[in-house]
Amino acid sequence: MTETRQKNVSKELEKLGLKVAAEIDKKENPNIEIPIRALSNVIFDKKLGQLTLGDKTAKRYFFNVAHSKKFMQSLLVAAFAKSLRDENIHASIRDMYYNLKRTIGDSNENTFDAQVDSDPIIVDIEVALDVLREQLHLTTDRKGIVAGNVIIQDRGDSIDWSKLGSGGWSIPSTVEEIDFKKVDAKFVLVCEKNAGFERLHEDKFWQKHKCILIGTGGQPSRGTRLLIQRLNSEFNLPVYVFCDADSYGFYIYSVIKSGSISLAHVSDRIATPEAKFIGLTISDIFKYDLKKATIKAREVDIKRAKELLNYEWFAKNPKWQKEINLMIEKGIKAEIEALSHQGLRFMGETYLPDKLKNKDFLD
Amino acid sequence: MTETRQKNVSKELEKLGLKVAAEIDKKENPNIEIPIRALSNVIFDKKLGQLTLGDKTAKRYFFNVAHSKKFMQSLLVAAFAKSLRDENIHASIRDMYYNLKRTIGDSNENTFDAQVDSDPIIVDIEVALDVLREQLHLTTDRKGIVAGNVIIQDRGDSIDWSKLGSGGWSIPSTVEEIDFKKVDAKFVLVCEKNAGFERLHEDKFWQKHKCILIGTGGQPSRGTRLLIQRLNSEFNLPVYVFCDADSYGFYIYSVIKSGSISLAHVSDRIATPEAKFIGLTISDIFKYDLKKATIKAREVDIKRAKELLNYEWFAKNPKWQKEINLMIEKGIKAEIEALSHQGLRFMGETYLPDKLKNKDFLD
Repeated sequence: MTETRQKNVSKELEKLGLKVAAEIDKKENPNIEIPIRALSNVIFDKKLGQLTLGDKTAKRYFFNVAHSKKFMQSLLVAAFAKSLRDENIHASIRDMYYNLKRTIGDSNENTFDAQVDSDPIIVDIEVALDVLREQLHLTTDRKGIVAGNVIIQDRGDSIDWSKLGSGGWSIPSTVEEIDFKKVDAKFVLVCEKNAGFERLHEDKFWQKHKCILIGTGGQPSRGTRLLIQRLNSEFNLPVYVFCDADSYGFYIYSVIKSGSISLAHVSDRIATPEAKFIGLTISDIFKYDLKKATIKAREVDIKRAKELLNYEWFAKNPKWQKEINLMIEKGIKAEIEALSHQGLRFMGETYLPDKLKNKDFLD
Repeated sequence: MTETRQKNVSKELEKLGLKVAAEIDKKENPNIEIPIRALSNVIFDKKLGQLTLGDKTAKRYFFNVAHSKKFMQSLLVAAFAKSLRDENIHASIRDMYYNLKRTIGDSNENTFDAQVDSDPIIVDIEVALDVLREQLHLTTDRKGIVAGNVIIQDRGDSIDWSKLGSGGWSIPSTVEEIDFKKVDAKFVLVCEKNAGFERLHEDKFWQKHKCILIGTGGQPSRGTRLLIQRLNSEFNLPVYVFCDADSYGFYIYSVIKSGSISLAHVSDRIATPEAKFIGLTISDIFKYDLKKATIKAREVDIKRAKELLNYEWFAKNPKWQKEINLMIEKGIKAEIEALSHQGLRFMGETYLPDKLKNKDFLD
């Protein structure tokens, strides 16, 4: 477990409240110190291989007309999170918005006018206290499915991920609180496409290859990224990411591995720098004779690919440079499903085993 | 089980092939008879309370330049489905497209140029044979979660929907093949919003109220609609649909209850005419003092609401007329999450129990 995971989050929330109360008692100007999240303070930590926040911070004061409303909102959100934790219940960020929205006293001023006002305050509290939204008991939409030889304990239930039929376990918004009772796997295979998950799951790929199979259904949810990170960091499991051979697929891999700019403040807890890309590559299209199943890249795909070339972690890697340039040069892309061109079981019986055996990964 | 569910689908596919083969042997013009799916042949069956196809059909001939390509495509898709069933595996409709795509002989002609060519052929086969896509072993994207006192058997696993922690069971694309071993519930509560599902699931609403709780995450997937229909028809469970108080929420209810125009050919197998609407209504906004948590309806919402007024099943119902007109008149809408304005447990401890006790439903 990382340090953050062991943090006493209720204590941190309480400390924030006590600090502000003490400032009021001392007739000082109450304030909250919050790390700056603007691009100017987002850096790529080469040692960690992650996007992360620099050390610039700003103070939010109560007695400052430009800060006062946000100061009030920050305390409302912190108090709300504290009560969620005290009651041990969870709420969506939308529920929170509705719960906290009201008109103040006799004024016409709302605490929050719209959810776009309350969402960033949650992130402020996250970075100010260096905790995760999930630890504040605030949930985001769930997405993602998992299957494998794993038994977990969650809300008093013992759940065997190998015995869930065709369904799999639906990954909840918060996986901070699950306990792993048994993890019998050699690696984690993360599949961008649900269709790919379904095919591999039906053929019990995870059983044959002793892996944990995760379907993300596109860009993975925070819950899914947290789960991948926990499996990697707590059980030393290699993580192989399986995406479409296109700019968007490459970007999904990049987000799993290095985090994203908008979530740079939590990279160390939800990114998995050890993740490797197992495919699909543009080279695979030629190696596995999938030319008939490619799609012409659109202008926007090419533009995006050119941007990716300059991402620090892609720029430094000759293999990635080759793949991305090949995509630009040939003007094609291909989906995971393109492998079905060689037969429905080709993906699980030939392509992936080949890749695993030859350690044919991109870093 | 409905008649369709007991149908021998492999036999039907084989019969189609044998019919065409016999026509070739007799040197006749081979053809497939397919019910017409155009709006002109979609009717609202008042007795069944469902959108359904009329009895107009068309024949697709091999020796007809306008039909020939589609005739070839239809046989390719039917043969593909037959092989999926023979091998007892499933494939996504995208996998099928890639698998069947190829250039014919020495020509420049592709079997399919894009997935938009192969998708409608699947529906042709569905209606021609009066079977479900799921019975052809073709899957669509999964969505939806379920929890409750139910034990099912699926792919050899026994799965207890009451023992899945915070996750719930991820509803697969195909629920045709699951067996219900134990169903201990008095009704089914279908919640449009995942956030609502999470809140109710956390408080074990399904345990306290002896129900099956389903989260659809917006417009329900085919698999989720099939599951609702099976629980209603096989176990006589009332179905209560819980949606946002807006045109889109009302439409989601309508689709669950009466089917949709584009899927009119399968309404009898995936619609649930007995479903009732439990909320949120526009009247509820005033009754439960949620005015502070409403949203101003946009022009497109009002336009959509006016269209709904004319839907046969809304037009005939004075209660629905009242609600939809109230929405238009007040120019407001509200989400399920608006109930959090009265406290996070208000939905599960006051609102829904109230509604259930007073049988305050819309039909």
